[in-house]
Parts: sequence; C-alpha cells; structure tokens
Amino acid sequence: MQKIRHSFAHILALSVKELYPDAWFGTGPDIENGFYYDIKTRTPINNEDLKRIEKKMKEVLKRNLVFKKKTTTKAEAKKIFKDQPFKLEILKELEGDKVSVYETGDFIDLCKGPHVESTKELNSNAFKLEKIAGAYFQGDEKNPMLTRIYGLAFKTEKELNDYLKLKEEAEKRDHRVLGEKLGIFMFDDEVGSGLPLWLPKGAILRKLIKDYLYQELIEDGYGFVETPHIGKLSLWQTSGHWENYRENIYSPIDIEGEKFVLKPMNCPFHVKIFKSQPRSYRELPLKMAEFGTVYRFERSGTLHGLTRVRGFTQDDAHIWCRENQLKKELTKLLKQGLKILKKFGFKEYNIYLSTRPEKYAGTEQGWKKATTILEQVLKEAKLDYNIDPGGGVFYGPKIDIKVKDTLGREWQCTTIQVDFNLPDRFQMFFINEKGEKERPYMIHRALYGSLERFIGVLIEHYAGAFPFWLAPVQIKILPVSDKFNKYAREIKEELGDCRVEVAEEKETISKKIRQGEMEKIPYLLIVGEKEKKAKTVSVRKRGKGDLGAMKMEKFKEIINK
Amino acid sequence: MQKIRHSFAHILALSVKELYPDAWFGTGPDIENGFYYDIKTRTPINNEDLKRIEKKMKEVLKRNLVFKKKTTTKAEAKKIFKDQPFKLEILKELEGDKVSVYETGDFIDLCKGPHVESTKELNSNAFKLEKIAGAYFQGDEKNPMLTRIYGLAFKTEKELNDYLKLKEEAEKRDHRVLGEKLGIFMFDDEVGSGLPLWLPKGAILRKLIKDYLYQELIEDGYGFVETPHIGKLSLWQTSGHWENYRENIYSPIDIEGEKFVLKPMNCPFHVKIFKSQPRSYRELPLKMAEFGTVYRFERSGTLHGLTRVRGFTQDDAHIWCRENQLKKELTKLLKQGLKILKKFGFKEYNIYLSTRPEKYAGTEQGWKKATTILEQVLKEAKLDYNIDPGGGVFYGPKIDIKVKDTLGREWQCTTIQVDFNLPDRFQMFFINEKGEKERPYMIHRALYGSLERFIGVLIEHYAGAFPFWLAPVQIKILPVSDKFNKYAREIKEELGDCRVEVAEEKETISKKIRQGEMEKIPYLLIVGEKEKKAKTVSVRKRGKGDLGAMKMEKFKEIINK
Repeated sequence: MQKIRHSFAHILALSVKELYPDAWFGTGPDIENGFYYDIKTRTPINNEDLKRIEKKMKEVLKRNLVFKKKTTTKAEAKKIFKDQPFKLEILKELEGDKVSVYETGDFIDLCKGPHVESTKELNSNAFKLEKIAGAYFQGDEKNPMLTRIYGLAFKTEKELNDYLKLKEEAEKRDHRVLGEKLGIFMFDDEVGSGLPLWLPKGAILRKLIKDYLYQELIEDGYGFVETPHIGKLSLWQTSGHWENYRENIYSPIDIEGEKFVLKPMNCPFHVKIFKSQPRSYRELPLKMAEFGTVYRFERSGTLHGLTRVRGFTQDDAHIWCRENQLKKELTKLLKQGLKILKKFGFKEYNIYLSTRPEKYAGTEQGWKKATTILEQVLKEAKLDYNIDPGGGVFYGPKIDIKVKDTLGREWQCTTIQVDFNLPDRFQMFFINEKGEKERPYMIHRALYGSLERFIGVLIEHYAGAFPFWLAPVQIKILPVSDKFNKYAREIKEELGDCRVEVAEEKETISKKIRQGEMEKIPYLLIVGEKEKKAKTVSVRKRGKGDLGAMKMEKFKEIINK
Repeated sequence: MQKIRHSFAHILALSVKELYPDAWFGTGPDIENGFYYDIKTRTPINNEDLKRIEKKMKEVLKRNLVFKKKTTTKAEAKKIFKDQPFKLEILKELEGDKVSVYETGDFIDLCKGPHVESTKELNSNAFKLEKIAGAYFQGDEKNPMLTRIYGLAFKTEKELNDYLKLKEEAEKRDHRVLGEKLGIFMFDDEVGSGLPLWLPKGAILRKLIKDYLYQELIEDGYGFVETPHIGKLSLWQTSGHWENYRENIYSPIDIEGEKFVLKPMNCPFHVKIFKSQPRSYRELPLKMAEFGTVYRFERSGTLHGLTRVRGFTQDDAHIWCRENQLKKELTKLLKQGLKILKKFGFKEYNIYLSTRPEKYAGTEQGWKKATTILEQVLKEAKLDYNIDPGGGVFYGPKIDIKVKDTLGREWQCTTIQVDFNLPDRFQMFFINEKGEKERPYMIHRALYGSLERFIGVLIEHYAGAFPFWLAPVQIKILPVSDKFNKYAREIKEELGDCRVEVAEEKETISKKIRQGEMEKIPYLLIVGEKEKKAKTVSVRKRGKGDLGAMKMEKFKEIINK
C-alpha cells in the first residue's frame, strides 16, 4: 500500500508540472490513508484547483507510464535538478556520492523508492485529492512556505469509499461538536485550554459512570479515599516522578516557603494512607480507590477535546499484595476491565502488553519477573494480546485494553500496571506471619482510564445516543399545548426515579419533537386531549419512531425490560 | 464578669509575689472563661506549682482586700515600679502624663481597670488555675520569655463546674482525635498542613452527605456542574477577588507563559457556564450547583483539624434571578438550610445578618437595597436574627446560620449571599420579555458550608456515634469463633444494601464487642452456635446494650423504623 500511495504522490507532481510548468517541488511522501506533495507555484494553487489537478492525474494514469529507478552521482543529479532549488537543497544534505532518482514520464524525482512498476497498478477510481494546507519547506519556519496538496489513495475504489464513509461518520460523531451541542461539556478561553467545564448533562453522565463503578468496587472490598489536588513537591521526588516525569508536572506553588505541586498522579497520597498505620499480611490484598483529578502539562498544540486535556479524573486504584497474590489479583482486574467495558457497549478490544521503556527504575531482573507474571496472566486467561515494546511505565510493565468503537477505531481505556519500585522508594512494608517486615507489590490500575477520555469515547461510540440507563435525560414529555402541561407533570411524577423533562415551552408539537430528537432522548412522550382523556401517553422511541398510545403500565414495562 | 476575671488576675499576681518575692510582672488581662498573668521568676514556675499558688490565692481572698484605684503621674509611677522592669517598659509606651494604678493589699499594678470593689465579690470556689505556657513579653519574640499562668474564673462554683464538664466533654469529642481514631481522615506532614486525606470511612460519609443534598437539589431543579481546580488569573481579576481577596489566593502557576491560580472559589466558572449561551427570562431563576474543591491560603498557625484547612469542598451553588424573584428564592434557601441542618440532628441555631464590610464593591444604594431584602426575608419568615455589622462579603450582604451542637457551641454552616456586583463585572445578562438585555441578580449559597467543616462539626456533635443512616459501618457481625464466619457472611448477604462488616479476625468475642463499641457502630450482631441453630442474631444496640436474640425479620424491622 505504501508503494501505491508514494507512486500517487509522483503522479500528482507530474500532473502539477504539466499544469504549472514553473512549479518547484519539495517532498512528497506516502502517509496514513494517502499521500501529499509540497509544491511552490507562481500562481497559487487553491482548493478550487484540486478538481482540475485530479482530472489531469486521471488522464496521466491512462498513459501507462513506468516508474524507472536510476542510480546516479550527486554531480549528475545537480544537473538534473538545476531548475528545482528545493531538490538541490535536499541533495546537499544527502550523504555519500550515489543518489537514486525515479523517472515517470516527463517527471523525474530525487527518491529512494520503492514504487509500483507502472501506472497500471494505480486505480484511478481509488484516489481523491483531499485538501491543501500551508507547510514550511522541511518543516522549518525560516524556510519558504509551500502548498501541501493532500490526497487519499487505496488499492480499490471500495476501500476509498469505505474510508470516506467512515470519515463522514466520524465527523458526525465528533465528541467536541456533539459534547457542546448536547450540553455535556464546554471549554472557555478565559478558563484555560484543556480544562473542561462539565455542564449539567455531563455531570449526570459523570455521576452515573462513577456510581456504577463505586458499587462494583465497594462490593469487591475496595476502600475509597479522597486526597488533595496539591501536595509537597518532595512527595514526587521520593516517588521518582519528578525525575522521570517532570515535563508533565506544572510549576511549583510556594506556600510559606515550601514548594507544592498540582498532583500529576494520586499514588503518593495512597501510599501515605497505606503507611499511616501498621499493616498486617491479613489485610492484603489491600485495595484503595479514588476518583482522583490530576493535572498534567500537555502542549496546547496537542490538546484535543476530552481525549487530550490538562486536567482529568482518573478512576484510580492501587492494590498492595504479596508476590503469590499477584496473579490472582491481576487476573481479576483484567476480567473486571473487560466486564466494565462491555457494560458500556464495547464489544471488541485489543490487549497490549507493554514492556520496559528506555527511562526506567528498578533492576532488569525485577522487570523480567513482573513482565513474565503479566504474560502468564494473559495466557492463562486465554486472551490474545500484542506486545508494545518499550511502552511500559518507568516503574513497571503494564497491560492495556484498547476498545474498538462502532467505527472500529481503537481507544485506550483500561490500564493495569505492576510496580515493584514505589514500595521500595517509600519504604512500605507489612508484617508477615513470622512477625517480620515484608515489602508488598503494588498494582496501579484504571478501568475507565479517565472520565474525560472515556466520556469522549462514549459520545463518539454512541454518536451521542446513549443507552437508556446512561442517558442524562431518559424521557421527555411533550404536551401538545399549554393546556396539557399539568397532565405532563403528573406523568413525570409517576415516572419517579427516571430522569424526565417536561417541554413546557410555547412551541408547536412538531418543533418539540424535532428538538427532542436532536437531543437524542431515548423516549419522547406526547400528551394531548386524546391521551389525557384515555390516561395514556403516545410514545416515540429514538431510532424507531412512533410506538403508538399506551397506558403508563405498558410504558413502564417497556423501559424496565 | 470581665471585672471579676481581671480582679482574679491581680489576686494571682499578689499571691505569686508572696511566694516568689523576686517576681517580675508583665501583663495580666481577663480572657474568655478566665484570666492570665505573664510572670518572670528566678525559680521557674511549673505546672506542679499551680496547686500551691491556688492555695495561696484562696488564703488571700479571705483577707477581704479592696481594689483601690489611684491616678498618678508618670514620674510617680516610675518610682512605684522601679523594681518592675516590664512595668517600666509598658509605662514608657503610655501616652499622656497621667496613669492609673490599682492597689490590692501589698500588690500595686499599672492598670486601667475596672475591678470589683473588694475580694468579697470573688468566689474562692469559682476559680481554678488551669495551665502554664511560655509567652514572649508583649508577644514579641525579641523580648524575654515569661511564664504565662492561665486561670479559669466564674461568678459561681456551678458555672465553673459546668464549664469544666463541658470542656472535658469537648475534649472527648475533639474531631481531630476521633477523626483519626474512627478512620475518617488523616493529615500527613509530607503531604502538607491543612490538606486532609479522607480515609475509606470518611469517603463514605462524604458520599452520603453529598448524595443526600444532590437528590434534594435535583428535585428542586438545580443543574450540577463540575469545573477545574485551576483557571487563568485574569478570571479572578475580573471578579474582583484578586483585588479584595488576594492574601488568600496561592501563588500563580505558569503555563506556556500564562498565569493560572488554584481556584479560591467556583463563582467565575459558574458565570462562564451561564454566559456560554444566550439566556432567556424563562430560564430564571437559573440554579447551578457544584461540590467544588477550592484552595485558600491560611497561615499554618491558624489551621485546626477539619474546621480550618487549606483545601475544602464547598457545597456551592449560584442562583441567577430577577429582582422580583429574590425574596422568594432567598426564603426558599433559608428554609432549605434549616431543613438540612435538622436532618443532621442540629436542633438549635442562631441566624446572623451581615452588613457591608470596610472593603466593598458596588454602590451604597445597592448595598442598602440588598440588605433590606435580606431583612424582609428574615422578618417575613418570622425568624429571630442578630446583626453582624461589617460581616458581609465584599460583593454583598449575607445571612449566616450557625448551628449549636450538643455542647451548645456555635458553628457556622449555611451562608446565603446576595451579589449585585459580579453580574456587572462579568457583563452578564438575559433577554427579557421585551427582547432587551437585562442584568440578573446573583445569589451565592452553601448549605453545609464545606464538607470538611461540616463533617468536623458532625463528629463533635455526635461524638463519633453517627445516626444509623449516616454511620460509615452500620452493622458489624461478630462470629464467636471461626466456625461461624460462614453463617456471619450469610447474614451479611441478607442485609443487602446496609453497610455491614464481618469481624473475622481471630479474637475472643468480648474483644470483638469492645472493638465494635470503640468503633461506635450502631448495631453489633453476635452469632454463635445458638444463633446459627435458631437462625437468629443476638443484637447489641449502641448506647442501649443487649437487645437479645431475634430473627432477621425482627431485626430488619428495627433498623427500618
């Protein structure tokens, strides 16, 4: 596929050259889903010109051209590219005396390849010029600005169309757009980039998601804790985060001459709670959970809606146990992670085992032992997994579960990390059966990952149409006119524990229905003269339409199914 | 009472002089519940000496001495106090040439008075020397250290005894002691002063307290929001907090060249949410709530357990409304505040109306109008109240409710504040019936105040023995031996939604009972051979003792009453 995409880039250049004979060419690589070429022309190329260039490309493709590779000397190449100042610039930076060039029709490019044999292998219905953008030559803002033409390219027309459909669908599901439209969250420049403000409907989602996990964990013997958002810098010096993670920690705050930082993670606080009293082997595994909001620096350019933010709430937990309890606990966590993801409608996932990174704490032996245990856990649970080499945290290896949403995109959620370093650094111990001090292992884990990312993913997964149990507003009652507001309120009363709204605004019933559909509310109940008299409601189900009039008992049966 | 207490201070000095003729005296004022005197002696005075001094005081009191006031010149006074260097020091700093002195027996003091006529008015059974402490002369650490002798003094012996009893009871209820003992919260030096860490039982309390209010407010039409813990400094410059409240705001954090601060309050974020979309008069009153954790600087010397901290979670809410809606909303809030305090077992309270402080924003006219509305609300609700002159917030006057705990001590909880400044500063408006922009009023209110203070007060109010609905552990099942652990777990299962623990540790039943009583758990269920056979539990109710064996149905009836 790379060969195909890279070859399309050359065809693009060749076509531009024919349309704009004075064009200077920069670089033109293949990229994910397609290719681009950076080009400078005297008459600027606009989005409107793409159609014309595309047409030219299709014409070129019919010529049955071959991609000829030649190896030549730098001196020879300088002659070939004498009218192409950017190519000469690139040439200067190449090492050695031999360079390779590719010739396609009248176009010759400084290029390592590889390419397809000929344009016969390029399907003229499987590509599309996408957009243009400005790009500095070699990405350096001191260099001239070129026009980058982006194209999509696949092997078959079907692949291209599938991709276009997926992209269109993804745009419709963009959580940044839907999140604001559905009143879930907002950002504000005066508050700061990457700091979401959760609107009432978003706060309901957060509460539902938290309460569900809270119940699961309480039943499983976890103790919940709540810890502050700042703590002395020395805590993170002890933990090693200051050394290994400093670029993500915000600048310190001075309080009476001491340095405090916004917590980038909750672990040191949980360790402090563990250490606040003598611990016995009988207490292990000791499980501590917190919905802890942490703050980590990310460059503003990398921020993205809820999936890349500067402050987020982890569903964090730490489990301290003995070595012989590790496997059982890890297996349980893995299953718990999969169960919870399923609860939220994710049916497919990929599992990754991440190994030792470049920057790490602890011994090689410790890493090997911990990694082996994680591998055993995955194998014994009969779960397929991929290795992510070097993807571990500085204090230990980890298992990540990435869910696939309805569009097949992967999102990192659950992470389960084995840590044999922090217990050392914080001198943690429990008293074993022999009355001796023994060091526990520590597991860090988050099942949702963070509420921000998880809700971002949920919005895209469901395209904002949350299942009944999760919908911020489950039912909206639409009186056909003011006269039926009272009856609507009675119906609301009868629906007791459900999250119900009554649309009392002075609008036509059809407008109320459109509004309710736009808000993606699972059930709309229309009430007017007929319904009031018969003590019924007319039910519209999201995605299904009119279910007709029915008694409340019947409707309750439907929603309780 | 001040005259009595101040006179006791002189009697203390006179008695010390007789016992330690070389004593130098500093100052000796009356204070809350008693008096003190700062004294320097060659032989140091210890706590063990207090009995002897007290005895001497009783002897002195029998002498029937009068307190004689004399006015004299500074020159004359210098002669009188020639052997009292601290008195000479004080003398230097007095203005004018005339000074007054009081003579009691052989003791003469530089003193403005007033005093009682004679020792006949001082009840020798109504005072008690309490403790000693070190104190720098005139509170300046560059001056010499004196010994401060503290005494308690009342009019009658009964008053003294009542106070001593109250004090003893208060010490038993000290939330700092009970809070750690009951596993509710902890502090840690390495985390930082004034930053509580909530332990599992404390987190349960927090959740119960939050969920109760959440339900109340959702039913009342509030929308909950969640906002970040940092925001751009400029927000608080706009709000006026930076100008009027700066000493409580922590030093800024730099993020990509911009200044951010830990939020000292939530209001600017809520204002931003209000302003994120056009608002109509139909939406008013618009009610927005958040359990928002804020951070405010307090000097380390003033920190006190949970009642004075550096980070705390307000049950914050803001209500935007029109002027003609203010009274109704304020009345509702006042009633809601009283209802909620009652729910938590507070039967008595005092209400305060706080008026314009020295540092204020807005016009005098605005202040007058807002204060009048608050007064009307209180009067129409037929509630007694006190005026707290100058106790308002910089942006408006307020009503505070201070509850009285079982010991009769007052604690500030609910606060309801009218604000006619922030809406101006943030240029807030809604569209009225005429399609015109209109500025809303803003009410700030917290019913609990903060979760930290409220839980601190609750612990002291209940002495840690929380009512059934609020107890972190409601029921503990105590198997008399390992053999009955399984039966105990079955009972736990049957108690479904209750918060139940099983005491499976290998301990005698009497030790388990003592432990359960120490943990102040509402019900202990003892299960052994007899109970297992008869399918019963033997119930011990906190504070009542043994209720005998009973079937589970019977026990469930009791707890559901």
